[in-house]
Amino acid sequence: MSARAGIVVTGTEVLTGRVADRNGPWLAERLRELGVDQAHTIVVGDRPAEVREALGWLAQAGVDVIITSGGLGPTEDDLTAAVVAEFQGRPMALDEPLEGRIWTILEGLRARWPDLDEEAIRRSNRKQAMVPEGATVLEPVGTAPGLVVPPADGAVGPTVVVLPGPPRELRPMWSTAVETDAFRAATTGATTYRQHMLRMFGIPESEIAETLVRARDAGIDLDALEITTCLRRGEVEVVTRYEPPQQATYDAFEAIVRDRHAGTLFSDDGTSVDEQVAGLLRSSGLTIATAESCTGGLLAGRLTDLAGSSDYVRGGLVVYSDAAKVALAGVDPELIARVGAVSVEVAEALADGAIAALDADVGVGITGIAGPGGGTPDKPVGTVCFSVALRGGGEDGGGPARLTRRVVLPGGRFDVRDRSTTVAMHLVRRLLRGERDGGPGSGSEDRAET
Amino acid sequence: MSARAGIVVTGTEVLTGRVADRNGPWLAERLRELGVDQAHTIVVGDRPAEVREALGWLAQAGVDVIITSGGLGPTEDDLTAAVVAEFQGRPMALDEPLEGRIWTILEGLRARWPDLDEEAIRRSNRKQAMVPEGATVLEPVGTAPGLVVPPADGAVGPTVVVLPGPPRELRPMWSTAVETDAFRAATTGATTYRQHMLRMFGIPESEIAETLVRARDAGIDLDALEITTCLRRGEVEVVTRYEPPQQATYDAFEAIVRDRHAGTLFSDDGTSVDEQVAGLLRSSGLTIATAESCTGGLLAGRLTDLAGSSDYVRGGLVVYSDAAKVALAGVDPELIARVGAVSVEVAEALADGAIAALDADVGVGITGIAGPGGGTPDKPVGTVCFSVALRGGGEDGGGPARLTRRVVLPGGRFDVRDRSTTVAMHLVRRLLRGERDGGPGSGSEDRAET
Repeated sequence: MSARAGIVVTGTEVLTGRVADRNGPWLAERLRELGVDQAHTIVVGDRPAEVREALGWLAQAGVDVIITSGGLGPTEDDLTAAVVAEFQGRPMALDEPLEGRIWTILEGLRARWPDLDEEAIRRSNRKQAMVPEGATVLEPVGTAPGLVVPPADGAVGPTVVVLPGPPRELRPMWSTAVETDAFRAATTGATTYRQHMLRMFGIPESEIAETLVRARDAGIDLDALEITTCLRRGEVEVVTRYEPPQQATYDAFEAIVRDRHAGTLFSDDGTSVDEQVAGLLRSSGLTIATAESCTGGLLAGRLTDLAGSSDYVRGGLVVYSDAAKVALAGVDPELIARVGAVSVEVAEALADGAIAALDADVGVGITGIAGPGGGTPDKPVGTVCFSVALRGGGEDGGGPARLTRRVVLPGGRFDVRDRSTTVAMHLVRRLLRGERDGGPGSGSEDRAET
Repeated sequence: MSARAGIVVTGTEVLTGRVADRNGPWLAERLRELGVDQAHTIVVGDRPAEVREALGWLAQAGVDVIITSGGLGPTEDDLTAAVVAEFQGRPMALDEPLEGRIWTILEGLRARWPDLDEEAIRRSNRKQAMVPEGATVLEPVGTAPGLVVPPADGAVGPTVVVLPGPPRELRPMWSTAVETDAFRAATTGATTYRQHMLRMFGIPESEIAETLVRARDAGIDLDALEITTCLRRGEVEVVTRYEPPQQATYDAFEAIVRDRHAGTLFSDDGTSVDEQVAGLLRSSGLTIATAESCTGGLLAGRLTDLAGSSDYVRGGLVVYSDAAKVALAGVDPELIARVGAVSVEVAEALADGAIAALDADVGVGITGIAGPGGGTPDKPVGTVCFSVALRGGGEDGGGPARLTRRVVLPGGRFDVRDRSTTVAMHLVRRLLRGERDGGPGSGSEDRAET
């Protein structure tokens, strides 16, 4: 039997949505890698009674380890350490050497904030150095220590790992936590699972539902596989987790997916389209530039998310106004007047303009209507035109090779803009892998991509 | 006593972090507006046993209403409706008129995906039309209906509101759900709370901790106020919720915050800095343009997040390479050679270049080291230089008015880039409100903003 864990994310700001929870998902992924089964993430406010209630539920569900995030800060509403101490039946006590080590950290901060009140800092210091007796202290990354707190001697129950809320403190501290004797003792018996992810672009999720039905009809024991499908940023992901003896079952399932979705399956090794585009640009030595209207810089932002992207990203143009399309990307104003700013022709001109303005090999042009206003019967909200061009890659040797698309994307302004960056990434990937539009005018067809 | 609610977010893709939960936080905010107290959000995978366990915990905690999101799709792992039916002791039955209405929706989708298997669609249709007996059906926004499911006749327990996972389906359906008799019956007795948010920029969270201590020392009954503080994208938010009779207590608390944080408090009405910048640009009739290096288009993307931003955003330059800084933003290559691309001088040249290239009134230049590589002892990772300029706004009438800053931002590549857009937004806000750098060279001081 596999070790089981639950996660408790504390913080009224997370519960109420003012801050997105970046820790629960990240911890879930780490537990999965360790082969620890994770069934629940509970988000609670800063009220001690609710944190205690969540700990109680998870203990009642029989988990072996509970991980908490948040509530270790200097303010009075940060109470996780005390609540966990009480839950585990271990009194809080001041750890004086820890207090000294935190003070050293705080002195560094004081240099940066010279006006801060020394007494307030001393009080924060002392609060953060109070730890449950018998707990293993995880050294602070910021100013808050983490804790691994086993049940009181002789008691039975889950071990609680207490981590701070800021992801940049929690993440390194997690690595320390899993190496502690207390954590290892609580998670012995973890099974190692195998996991595979298949990513597809350009099909609806219901098509995967049908694939599952066909796999079952073909006699594959899907119950031996833990399959989840989801739609993310316009892509369909199929993730399968299974125990090693089920390898043949998984292989048979994957073969069916590959057969039915050959044209849309783009990743079978966990890589994202962003990583694939980066790899293709690196291996080909090509550079890229963008000219974006409705996405307003989000594609350039996404291309430069990856460290080292300065090796192949030349830059981009955000041409939100028509005047900017003309002045920066060299789009012919008569073309805009004739076919409209949202058109495949202008998308092509933008791609060419990005190449010319930034002296890049690959250009991406995006123009569309993100909404909520601006839609017409011909060009409803969500209409977005894309063109990706490769300098000198055309059949005749002279002009660029291209892929151009006009699509209507679902959702509101946020969705349309975000989804547009995904469509553009896939078009760049296809262009770099040698796909080309069929011939003159083929780019103007209306093809739904999502 | 206030009505109480819990939220159950289902979906292995959310539990494991492959998809961010956008529903839990949004629903929590809506409950808060209704005066319904919300203490827990539980995220579970797609396994029925775990969904049932979460429902049981919330019932045991005595909540009046449970809202679930997700698990209503066409795939076999979408089981929420059946689990809730069983939990409430209400058998599932086919709702034939509903089946017909869903079929009409599906026929519209088939036009878009002509190759889909009709039998698969029929099966999805029938599955999504199975509902618990006695439940109120919420009409589909996508293809899945929502449900309001009270406990079985004669039974005591929470009413369960079952909503689909995609936010653009869940959100409109929520408005319908709260108008149903079943929902109203479950939440009678909800108290109306008042809520205020104060936002500050440029102080550490520990300073707020000290403010709370002083407020308590001044005799303010903080226990009568529900105060939460959090750090979000470099800003500190203080949100206070209280019952109407505590208005005077709140007013006294707010006065102390205003007194201690006069220089950094920028919002007391819930507006974000993004909204304030948009409002200032609109009311002044000024246009804005960007020239971004390390943020790679994220600031332009953020400026264009708001609908209608084309009224004042001219566009931007993403000048990731030095060649692009020279070619597009007109930065003197000798300047880059002399002081380095990451310098206040280049930030100023970028701001001026944005104004010139896009014929804008306000220009923003950003150049920095987002990491993980590229840091030096003089310019460590996180060093970012900003300049915002207003054309013709200088004292001498000719040159631009400016605010220029060099800061060292904490965190990894994501944090540095994201935080940089916040710093830039605040500098634009201050410039538009008339703040100016003190004199020649004052912009080059090293001033920590976060």
